Amino acid sequence: MSEKEALEYARTKLDYFAEDAELTCKEIGDGNLNYIFRIVDEKYNKSIIIKQAGPVARISDEFKVSPDRNRIESDILKLHYKLAPDYAPITYEYDPIMNCFAMEDLSDYEIMRAALMKYKEFPLFADQITTFIVNTLIHTSDVVMEHKEKKELVKKFINPELCEISEDLVYTEPFYDCPRNEVFDPSRSFIEEHIWNDKQLQLETAKLKFEFMTNAQSLIHGDLHTGSIFIKEDTLKVIDPEFAFYGPIGYDVGNVIANLILAYVHARFTIEDETERNSYVNYLKKTIREVVNLFKDKFNQAFDRYATEQVTAYEGFKSYYLESILKDTAAVAGLELCRRIIGLAQVVDITSIEDSEKRANAEKICLLSGKKFILERDTLTTGEGYVNVIEAFEKETLEV
Amino acid sequence: MSEKEALEYARTKLDYFAEDAELTCKEIGDGNLNYIFRIVDEKYNKSIIIKQAGPVARISDEFKVSPDRNRIESDILKLHYKLAPDYAPITYEYDPIMNCFAMEDLSDYEIMRAALMKYKEFPLFADQITTFIVNTLIHTSDVVMEHKEKKELVKKFINPELCEISEDLVYTEPFYDCPRNEVFDPSRSFIEEHIWNDKQLQLETAKLKFEFMTNAQSLIHGDLHTGSIFIKEDTLKVIDPEFAFYGPIGYDVGNVIANLILAYVHARFTIEDETERNSYVNYLKKTIREVVNLFKDKFNQAFDRYATEQVTAYEGFKSYYLESILKDTAAVAGLELCRRIIGLAQVVDITSIEDSEKRANAEKICLLSGKKFILERDTLTTGEGYVNVIEAFEKETLEV
Repeated sequence: MSEKEALEYARTKLDYFAEDAELTCKEIGDGNLNYIFRIVDEKYNKSIIIKQAGPVARISDEFKVSPDRNRIESDILKLHYKLAPDYAPITYEYDPIMNCFAMEDLSDYEIMRAALMKYKEFPLFADQITTFIVNTLIHTSDVVMEHKEKKELVKKFINPELCEISEDLVYTEPFYDCPRNEVFDPSRSFIEEHIWNDKQLQLETAKLKFEFMTNAQSLIHGDLHTGSIFIKEDTLKVIDPEFAFYGPIGYDVGNVIANLILAYVHARFTIEDETERNSYVNYLKKTIREVVNLFKDKFNQAFDRYATEQVTAYEGFKSYYLESILKDTAAVAGLELCRRIIGLAQVVDITSIEDSEKRANAEKICLLSGKKFILERDTLTTGEGYVNVIEAFEKETLEV
Repeated sequence: MSEKEALEYARTKLDYFAEDAELTCKEIGDGNLNYIFRIVDEKYNKSIIIKQAGPVARISDEFKVSPDRNRIESDILKLHYKLAPDYAPITYEYDPIMNCFAMEDLSDYEIMRAALMKYKEFPLFADQITTFIVNTLIHTSDVVMEHKEKKELVKKFINPELCEISEDLVYTEPFYDCPRNEVFDPSRSFIEEHIWNDKQLQLETAKLKFEFMTNAQSLIHGDLHTGSIFIKEDTLKVIDPEFAFYGPIGYDVGNVIANLILAYVHARFTIEDETERNSYVNYLKKTIREVVNLFKDKFNQAFDRYATEQVTAYEGFKSYYLESILKDTAAVAGLELCRRIIGLAQVVDITSIEDSEKRANAEKICLLSGKKFILERDTLTTGEGYVNVIEAFEKETLEV
């Protein structure tokens, strides 16, 4: 749709604005895959968002993606609203013909990645995002959900094309010299030596790729980075679940952690004033620790409270299950760090570091940490563990 | 359908018999879930089978099972015929209204379980069944199949009700004192001590149950015991894939091994003549060894020849993947042995051992072997390994 068509659509198809509303429309999308229209009624001060999926990705027309993702996104947002109402937007009609749906206007929020680039702090974030993750994931897992019902959801949210994007961009291309990678020139020799020539690392990424393709554990968001979170001082809304499918719980948790680490290296290398820098990186370290530790606490509590599957009550099962999630979490955090540095979908956290040496150092810290998270994923069982790894590689990198 | 209705159905709906055929019809089913009609034209010496699914299981009306399983079975048989034409029956029309389909009459074959009870030998079995398993499973896995196409098959063969039966009868009920179990009285105290009171064993069964519910590895048969195999001297046909869904490859391999072990203990305790007994149990031991070892060989060959997923070429991946299948195989062999002794769905291999003491000994050997296969599944990597475990427990049990 053009802006004009979206405005007409809102006026005639949605039962939302008054008949005498004074509507304006603007395309505000900056994502990779969709068109986002904001329609405002200035007369009665109401507004709404229309999100439309086209047949190819905006990032590159190499990616053909079925508009069915719009159905998936709309259904998942409704489910998230049911399971974690504080942290999911309200959605309205889904239109399978126009491949669009309307949702709550979140203009008073900002994209978390952009806010972190401005060094804003959100002290409630760790608490909020872990509630979102635990509520949406444990309730769609076989631990809690009746298994036949769960299998119907697996079927409903089979998502071949979007999964293929993750399989390629996250699990495959970053780990060899793929033409589609976007390597920062000063980092190339480092990447060749430490990533592309590491056969053990490649083997582990292959195992993880198969885990991603086969482990139907929970109905995950599938793209839970800081660009998929609208945030303001007191709350947040998770958006863009078009990559959702039944996959490993650790995929969502690991993505949150990795993107906090990307924000961390950004702050570390871009804040000039030492006091300010220390304060902000300490806030981010605290947040990383809290995300891991609160996730564990809340997961254990929810497990105790909601588990219905009888064999989950066997002694030792809960800790086995959580340990395997934490292992996946560490691995995915590592994959996400590597792929955001090496792969096609880069992040502003890194690309906006103007000084070449600083950017190269930021990339080194991310890559070494990411590699360690993948290879030693068994050992990352606490928030402190993550922070210790980053601090150690920061020290090593800056001392050279 | 009644026999009369099935005959009319064959005459009017199937394009198979001549207009002047002289048809007779007999219901020949002895399975747990379906009605099987054999329709014979004595004039032209032609025959066909019609298989119809009702809304409840014949074994117990506690199991409500959707007639959709008939669609699954018919589609899977067609796929098996494509992937392993020598070992799958020819199927004809599937009728979604009557929930039935027609297939090749296999009356010149016999059910393998019954043949083994008569101490018949099938020297080609191990070679034939491993070809069937490798062909049907590697080609539907992410190792070979294009991943988007595979996901469409996952969706098509989501099988909630039949999976629930396996989740309950194989993975849950046998491992505690469930009222639905059918415990042989003389074995009860042994089962209490060695199975129901073993917390480590229970924990492992819980892990395996989640593996069964979440690991969408290959389009497995899902019920590959010797009652699902029609066999004759020179060939076999695998039937009854109504439990098919995307699950662990080891589930099919493990079921074959366990059911050979059940035939083994049957022969061990029912053949009086020592020479005859030794000869037949040696044949079965040889077959068990060959099933494991030929599966490994053929899997490796097929992997080398057909793998398309690029990350499977990383050094070490193939052996990692095969090792994880062998681990699942051992665990499932163990689960199947335990559940056929303790659970609701018993087998004639055991129940036909008339002497109480002999039956109790046969059950002990199966249960101790099964438990070891589950607990030490990492170590069962060769056919010899399985045979060694059975021989050791046979010795131990008979020496007491």
